[in-house]
Amino acid sequence: MGDSPEDRLIARHFKPLAKHPGTFGFSDDCSAIAPPAGHDLVLKTDGLIAGVHFFPDDPADGVARKALRVNLSDLAAKGATPLGFLLAIALPKGFDENWLADFARGLGEDADAYQCPLLGGDTDSTPGPTSISIAAFGGLPTGTMVKRSGAKAGDHVFVSGTFGDAALGLRVRRDRAIARNWKLDAAMSDHLVARYRLPQPRNALAEAVRAHARAAMDVSDGLAGDLAKLCGASRVSADIEVARVPLSPAAAQALAADPALVEPILTGGEDYEIACAIPPGAVNQFRAAANSAGVPVTDIGRIAASDASPRFLDEAGRALTFTRPGYSHF
Amino acid sequence: MGDSPEDRLIARHFKPLAKHPGTFGFSDDCSAIAPPAGHDLVLKTDGLIAGVHFFPDDPADGVARKALRVNLSDLAAKGATPLGFLLAIALPKGFDENWLADFARGLGEDADAYQCPLLGGDTDSTPGPTSISIAAFGGLPTGTMVKRSGAKAGDHVFVSGTFGDAALGLRVRRDRAIARNWKLDAAMSDHLVARYRLPQPRNALAEAVRAHARAAMDVSDGLAGDLAKLCGASRVSADIEVARVPLSPAAAQALAADPALVEPILTGGEDYEIACAIPPGAVNQFRAAANSAGVPVTDIGRIAASDASPRFLDEAGRALTFTRPGYSHF
Repeated sequence: MGDSPEDRLIARHFKPLAKHPGTFGFSDDCSAIAPPAGHDLVLKTDGLIAGVHFFPDDPADGVARKALRVNLSDLAAKGATPLGFLLAIALPKGFDENWLADFARGLGEDADAYQCPLLGGDTDSTPGPTSISIAAFGGLPTGTMVKRSGAKAGDHVFVSGTFGDAALGLRVRRDRAIARNWKLDAAMSDHLVARYRLPQPRNALAEAVRAHARAAMDVSDGLAGDLAKLCGASRVSADIEVARVPLSPAAAQALAADPALVEPILTGGEDYEIACAIPPGAVNQFRAAANSAGVPVTDIGRIAASDASPRFLDEAGRALTFTRPGYSHF
Repeated sequence: MGDSPEDRLIARHFKPLAKHPGTFGFSDDCSAIAPPAGHDLVLKTDGLIAGVHFFPDDPADGVARKALRVNLSDLAAKGATPLGFLLAIALPKGFDENWLADFARGLGEDADAYQCPLLGGDTDSTPGPTSISIAAFGGLPTGTMVKRSGAKAGDHVFVSGTFGDAALGLRVRRDRAIARNWKLDAAMSDHLVARYRLPQPRNALAEAVRAHARAAMDVSDGLAGDLAKLCGASRVSADIEVARVPLSPAAAQALAADPALVEPILTGGEDYEIACAIPPGAVNQFRAAANSAGVPVTDIGRIAASDASPRFLDEAGRALTFTRPGYSHF
C-alpha cells in the first residue's frame, strides 16, 4: 500500500515548493488560505500548450516561468498583489523526468521571486502535448480592482515597457535568418527571443495602477486589439500616436529596416505590458509612482469620446488599418 | 477591431454562465470575489482529458458535470461550502460547436445546482485531445478544514454512498458483454455506467463532516489506496470489514457472480464518496446529521494504533492483498 508512482513524482518535484503552511506539504486533497480581511480575491486562469504557446524544445524552467508570469501579468494590471496559484500539468507518456525537474525548479524560483506560492496542483498523463494550466489568485482592498471599464475622454493612455519584442522574437525564433533582413546583431536577436520566451510581468507597477488608473488591462493579445477591448468596456475610443509607442532598440531597428513590421508590433501579442487610462490630474503622481517602482511608463495618447475603435495615428495623422487586430485561438 | 472568433465563442457559450457579479460578465481580465469574513478559502484543481478520464463520445454535458463534480467532491470531504470555480478548456482543431454548447449547458446547470458559479476561464486550441481543468474554491470558518491527518485509534471509519460502481461501470462501458457474465440486467448495467459517467459528490454531507469528523478525504483513487493515504497522514492504521463496505445492488450482484471483483471494487477509483474518521462519542450525532442531509453513511471499521497499512478483512478475518492499491497516472 505504498505511494504510487504519481505520488512519488509529486513528492520529488513539487513537494519542495509546498512552502505555504496552507498546502499541508501537499499531503491533503485541498489547500486552505486565509485571504486578508477587508480584501477581495482576484482570480485568473491561463495556460500554455506545447506546440501552441511554446516550442517543445524550449527550456523547461522558462516554460514554467512563462506559465506563471502570464497570469501574474493579469493580476498586476488589475492592481492586485499575488497570493498564490494552483498548477494543473498534463504530461505525455514517456516524458523526460529531467524536464519536469527543470520545470519545477523554474516554477519554484519564480514563486519565490514574485511571492506567489504554489498552493496545490494536479498531475495527469495525456496522449496529447504537454499542457500547463495555472489558476492565480491576488488580493486587493475590497472593491478596488481596476477594471477595463472606467476610462473617460481626456484620460492619458499609458503603457509600461516596450511593445512588439515578443511578436518579433517569435519570428526570429522560427527563422533566425530573418534577423539579417532586419539588420539585427546577435544581442538584438537574443533580446527579442528572450522577450518572447520570458515575459516580465509588471507586478511592481500594480500599486501605482490601483492608486491612479481609471481602467487598465494587461496587453497579451496585441496592443491594438487589447486597447480596443479596454475602450469597448469603457464605451470610449482612443487616439494613439504610433511614434510614441515605446520600442526596444531591437524592435526599433527591425521596424526601421521593414516598416511593415508596425503591424505585428501593434497586434502580435505576448507583450505582457500594462495599458491604462490615467486622468489628467493624476499623470504626475502616476509617473512618480512608476518611477519609484522602477517600471518605465510612456504616455502614448488620449482617450476620446466616441464609440469608434481606437485609432493608431502615423506621423501624418492618418489612422493605420490592420489585417488582424489581435491574437485569437479560433 | 471587432471581437475575435475566440471572443465570440466565449460570448455565445460561457457569458450566459457569468451570473456572479464579480465576473463582470466575463468582460474583464480577472474576476473578483469577496470571501466571507472569518473564513478560509479551500482550493482544489482537478482535470479531465478525453481518452484518459472520459470517452471522446461521452455526452458533453456529462463531461462538464463530471469535471466540476470531481472538484466539488474534494471540497465536500474537507467540510467546505462551494464558492465558485475557474475553467480552463483546450479544444482540438475543428471541434464541434454543438459539443461546446452542450458542455456549457451542463456546466451551467451544475453550477446552479451546487451553487458554485463559474468565475472565469481560459479557452485554447490544442493539437491534442479535449482537455478540461477546473480550479474550485470553497469556504469554511477559519482553521476548520477537515484534513487527512487527525484520525485517532478507536475512531469509526465511515463512508458515504456505495463503492465500486464506477470501476465496474467503466468495464461495462468498455465491453457491454461483461454485464452478462456478471448476470446484470439492463437497469443494473445502466446504473454502473451512470455512476462512472456522473459522480454524485457529497456536498450535502460537508457540514456533518466538518462538525464531527477528525479526518476525512474524498475517495477518488480507490478506497484501499485513499484510506491508506488518510491513515498515513494520521500516522495510524485501520481495520476494515470488507463485508460492511456498502455496495449498490448492481455491484453486489456482480461481486456474487465474480468474487475477484472485490479488488476493482476496493481499488478501482472514481467513487467520489467521502471516507472519514468519527470519534466514538460523535458517531450518533454524525449519523443523525448525515440522515438529515439525506446522505447514506456506513460504519465499515475502526482506526487502529499502528503504522501498518490499513487491513481489509474478509469474513474469516483474513487481510486481503491487492495487486495495485489505487489509480496512478504514471
